[in-house]
Amino acid sequence: MSGERPIIALAMGDPAGISPELTARLLASQAVKQAAHLVVIGDRRVLDAGARTASVEFHLAEVEAERLPGAASAEPQLIDLRNLDPADVAIGQATPAGGAFATQNFAVALRLANAGKVDAVCFTPFNKKAMRYAYPGYDDEIRFIADAIGFTGRAREFNVLDQVWNARVTSHIPLADVARSITREAILSELALTFETLRRAGIAAPRVAVAGLNPHAGDGGSFGREEIEIIAPAIAEASAQGMAAEGPFPPDTVFLTALKNGFHAVLTMYHDQGQIAMKLMGFDRGVTMVGGLPFPVCTPAHGTAYDIANQGVADVGASEQALLLAARLARANDRRAA
Amino acid sequence: MSGERPIIALAMGDPAGISPELTARLLASQAVKQAAHLVVIGDRRVLDAGARTASVEFHLAEVEAERLPGAASAEPQLIDLRNLDPADVAIGQATPAGGAFATQNFAVALRLANAGKVDAVCFTPFNKKAMRYAYPGYDDEIRFIADAIGFTGRAREFNVLDQVWNARVTSHIPLADVARSITREAILSELALTFETLRRAGIAAPRVAVAGLNPHAGDGGSFGREEIEIIAPAIAEASAQGMAAEGPFPPDTVFLTALKNGFHAVLTMYHDQGQIAMKLMGFDRGVTMVGGLPFPVCTPAHGTAYDIANQGVADVGASEQALLLAARLARANDRRAA
Repeated sequence: MSGERPIIALAMGDPAGISPELTARLLASQAVKQAAHLVVIGDRRVLDAGARTASVEFHLAEVEAERLPGAASAEPQLIDLRNLDPADVAIGQATPAGGAFATQNFAVALRLANAGKVDAVCFTPFNKKAMRYAYPGYDDEIRFIADAIGFTGRAREFNVLDQVWNARVTSHIPLADVARSITREAILSELALTFETLRRAGIAAPRVAVAGLNPHAGDGGSFGREEIEIIAPAIAEASAQGMAAEGPFPPDTVFLTALKNGFHAVLTMYHDQGQIAMKLMGFDRGVTMVGGLPFPVCTPAHGTAYDIANQGVADVGASEQALLLAARLARANDRRAA
Repeated sequence: MSGERPIIALAMGDPAGISPELTARLLASQAVKQAAHLVVIGDRRVLDAGARTASVEFHLAEVEAERLPGAASAEPQLIDLRNLDPADVAIGQATPAGGAFATQNFAVALRLANAGKVDAVCFTPFNKKAMRYAYPGYDDEIRFIADAIGFTGRAREFNVLDQVWNARVTSHIPLADVARSITREAILSELALTFETLRRAGIAAPRVAVAGLNPHAGDGGSFGREEIEIIAPAIAEASAQGMAAEGPFPPDTVFLTALKNGFHAVLTMYHDQGQIAMKLMGFDRGVTMVGGLPFPVCTPAHGTAYDIANQGVADVGASEQALLLAARLARANDRRAA
């Protein structure tokens, strides 16, 4: 912590989209400044180009990674890796150079957090294709994080929109494989991680709504029996273990149910069951958070937006929410450790 | 047609929920009165109870089914089947008596439409459990309609919300069976029916967005190959046949894409891919329409709302939209026939 504020490493994401502009806007955000001390990881030249696009100004001191956390600094800081010349950025294109830049920044940020030099990690959007150029076998952030810091535990992606969290039992797998992946053990394990993460986020008594798998949650077994044979028993077992989980609810109204009845999170069975809802409920404000790690990792849920790169029109809302959530989680972590 | 207005048979739905109140509110609606001539099918005593709950008044002439369509009538009409005493209605409960009432009303309405005595059918919400008491083997409206009028063609359910229609390749089947049910033939057949129905609804040049099946539409084959091997080829074939179909789009943003780019409909691959979105976009305004029949059948997308039965607080918005859509479709049908 730097004074009262947690220190957040902000890794610059894909340079060909809106990430440089978003990074600059975050540095100019008063809400972010009050909540966290930012240490940006990237290249000053690319960041300066982002500041010109965003038409914002800020003062940014340079710092060496080895000197962190160091004395409390009023101004945000930059670890300048000098790893990308803006002349080499092909706007709107996924390139190996862009992927190398983003993966380097992210890896440095993760190692700083893992070493306890910063309290949390945030990043502006990556492009998956570019990441794969630089890091073959890149599936998603979780795999990359595990490799970068040698993490062997169980980490999972949460989506957070306003007051509702979304966790899921399966994620980036073919829809054809979803049903056979829904087991009592998988549901219980996700529920346990969800409750732990919500408590770490400062929610003292979390309540979680669990979605069914089939249309109308199977309608009493008429179209699928997973609700009866797998999901309901898993919820019963979770309740017996002290978790306030309820359901299974019909998938098409589970988010409406959660909003109406004050659930803190929805556990969905597959990627789009949650993502369709989260994106409709507030595409521009959603945050993705990786839970289960020794430190919080947050990012806006939207992508690189190649189509509006360099136009100065990028909405910083979700990135701000990501920073603010990371700061809240870091403070809660710190209290817990104290 | 009755004068300029199409004649719509309005079947009273499940009596234990908000259906009697909704029927009464529809009879009192000026928007409905201007768009259609209503012939209610049900029991005057149950309808009067609904009018008291809704605190609305209307004049309703009685008519015999055999006398339809008859001379143009300024006031709405009632075919009083005298088939339910309000004293036998158990508010908030699915009962055999309630199911018998709803199935009788619906069957009479369908036969009137099939005989050309009315131009369209609407109904206030059914309760599936009650329908099954009265009609064992009741799966959904489509099966019931086919049985009632001896229809052997291909009918499908569409959901309509404001300007966006939703059609789907699969519907009330277990999620485990979805992937294997997605074939090029099934997609092409649904697209053909969707374009035909949109044209019948008066949309001269319909455009349809097609959803992928897998997360991120498979992300280039990383999580599922159906987009590459089945969906994209089906879209290409549809385009070659003159249908303005585009996609496959990532399922979690396909409705946002459709709204932004003025598509008239979204073809989804499974029930909840569309229903999650439609219910979040406007649960109270959505309409379900059965397409492919010789006449339009429309109903509000919401259910019987047992929890607010008899309280006088039911929102008639979706039922009104259902009536207005049925009227538009009936007029378009009539022009087509002329």
